Amino acid sequence: MGLAFEARELETYMEKIFPQVANDFAIDALSVDAITMRLKVAERHLRPGGTVSGPSMFALADVTVYALVLSRLGPKSLAVTTNCSLDFMRKPESGRDIVAKGQLLKLGRSLAVGDVHMFSAGSDKLVARSTMTYSIPPER
Amino acid sequence: MGLAFEARELETYMEKIFPQVANDFAIDALSVDAITMRLKVAERHLRPGGTVSGPSMFALADVTVYALVLSRLGPKSLAVTTNCSLDFMRKPESGRDIVAKGQLLKLGRSLAVGDVHMFSAGSDKLVARSTMTYSIPPER
Amino acid sequence: MGLAFEARELETYMEKIFPQVANDFAIDALSVDAITMRLKVAERHLRPGGTVSGPSMFALADVTVYALVLSRLGPKSLAVTTNCSLDFMRKPESGRDIVAKGQLLKLGRSLAVGDVHMFSAGSDKLVARSTMTYSIPPER
Amino acid sequence: MGLAFEARELETYMEKIFPQVANDFAIDALSVDAITMRLKVAERHLRPGGTVSGPSMFALADVTVYALVLSRLGPKSLAVTTNCSLDFMRKPESGRDIVAKGQLLKLGRSLAVGDVHMFSAGSDKLVARSTMTYSIPPER
Repeated sequence: MGLAFEARELETYMEKIFPQVANDFAIDALSVDAITMRLKVAERHLRPGGTVSGPSMFALADVTVYALVLSRLGPKSLAVTTNCSLDFMRKPESGRDIVAKGQLLKLGRSLAVGDVHMFSAGSDKLVARSTMTYSIPPER
Repeated sequence: MGLAFEARELETYMEKIFPQVANDFAIDALSVDAITMRLKVAERHLRPGGTVSGPSMFALADVTVYALVLSRLGPKSLAVTTNCSLDFMRKPESGRDIVAKGQLLKLGRSLAVGDVHMFSAGSDKLVARSTMTYSIPPER
Repeated sequence: MGLAFEARELETYMEKIFPQVANDFAIDALSVDAITMRLKVAERHLRPGGTVSGPSMFALADVTVYALVLSRLGPKSLAVTTNCSLDFMRKPESGRDIVAKGQLLKLGRSLAVGDVHMFSAGSDKLVARSTMTYSIPPER
Repeated sequence: MGLAFEARELETYMEKIFPQVANDFAIDALSVDAITMRLKVAERHLRPGGTVSGPSMFALADVTVYALVLSRLGPKSLAVTTNCSLDFMRKPESGRDIVAKGQLLKLGRSLAVGDVHMFSAGSDKLVARSTMTYSIPPER
């Protein structure tokens, strides 16, 4: 199965359906099973001390796997997150974007599972990891 | 071990250390092992269709367990989230706050674990559940 | 929706389909949304030092939620575990059974989610907790 | 930091401390951050229909990360599992061993985190994935 979207199309589509977070994310790379998604870190993503907030990391992991699912199933997809596990390993470096490397582990008829490794831009030290499960409702 | 904070003091303290989210949360009740935390749902927490966003649910679960830890350890606490599991069960009802019932499952020397059940205000149907682990650094 | 099985029937049914573990578990109580399942701790469940092994705790959590699903859907059910989160809080007390209190959090058309709290028999200190998600294949 | 053990030494050490499961596992490869661990599938690991049981998959993931931690910290290590997330993606192929590829994501002073991808031997289709967190008690 190939891609239903190219990176720019997918970005445009996601901006349309999630206007609230349109300026938070950018797709750096997209292939059939993998994506690189960037959280464009701004003041609103930070906690005191300059750390990127937990909810911002969650949002990045979630949008990364959602984009992987959309890139394969196309815009008809109504996939919803059903489960998330998230491990925080290191404090992100301040003043840097967060880069998420996502991989689609399973794309079944009713469930999709993706894995995300998150880094401070320019570093190869893992900041956090996440696995997200999406439920794919039957087509009507 | 008793409470290091009463509910109003804890709320005031959290507003001081997390001014970014001060208006998002309110503590409805606090006891030695349990807390009721409210996400005061506003436009910024919503996704298209009126659903409360995943990152907002994560933030609620995280702040709920953090408040439980703070309520016991007091303001010296530098606890940081190390692990989260989150299950989304039902779509929240639109136009309602989300109410989180948190319980401290463990408060050890180096790890604290809390469990959170989240409901639409006024409903007893579970919207989501989460377990959060906090690492408590050794006192210096 | 009521129970498709009573406790003794369910135990008998599970012994038939899982003869390998028939002697490991007993159902102490069963209601529409909750179950109490007992791991009858024997030498084969132990690790050096007398601790109940992690895989035995996993098995207990898994069978607890599976029994809850079966008790509602009846023997036609082919539910398979798709996700598990498991937190170990305290060392179990040696020489005691482990008692699991399971609760069905969701029973949807395609997914069931259950929560399990595990204790040493006779103690109210939490040894471990788990959430298990089962995928329910469409009926053919 | 280098390895405290080579693969054969580590295997011998683990057989000594876990005689109950000594015959279940073999280390196929070991480097500073990665390990390949094999579950030598036998009748006792199976469920009806020939599937490898969930507890056996849990045990494999757990021993994989434990071996990674031991390989770095050496035999003094008293690390205990505190958290596990486990996703089951596909039915394993019958009559095959399960091969686990483990990676150490973090080795901190008090916590270690490892990630495990599990496959049927000879296949590159993911059967399951797991993240395990170990707590490392302070040296006495």
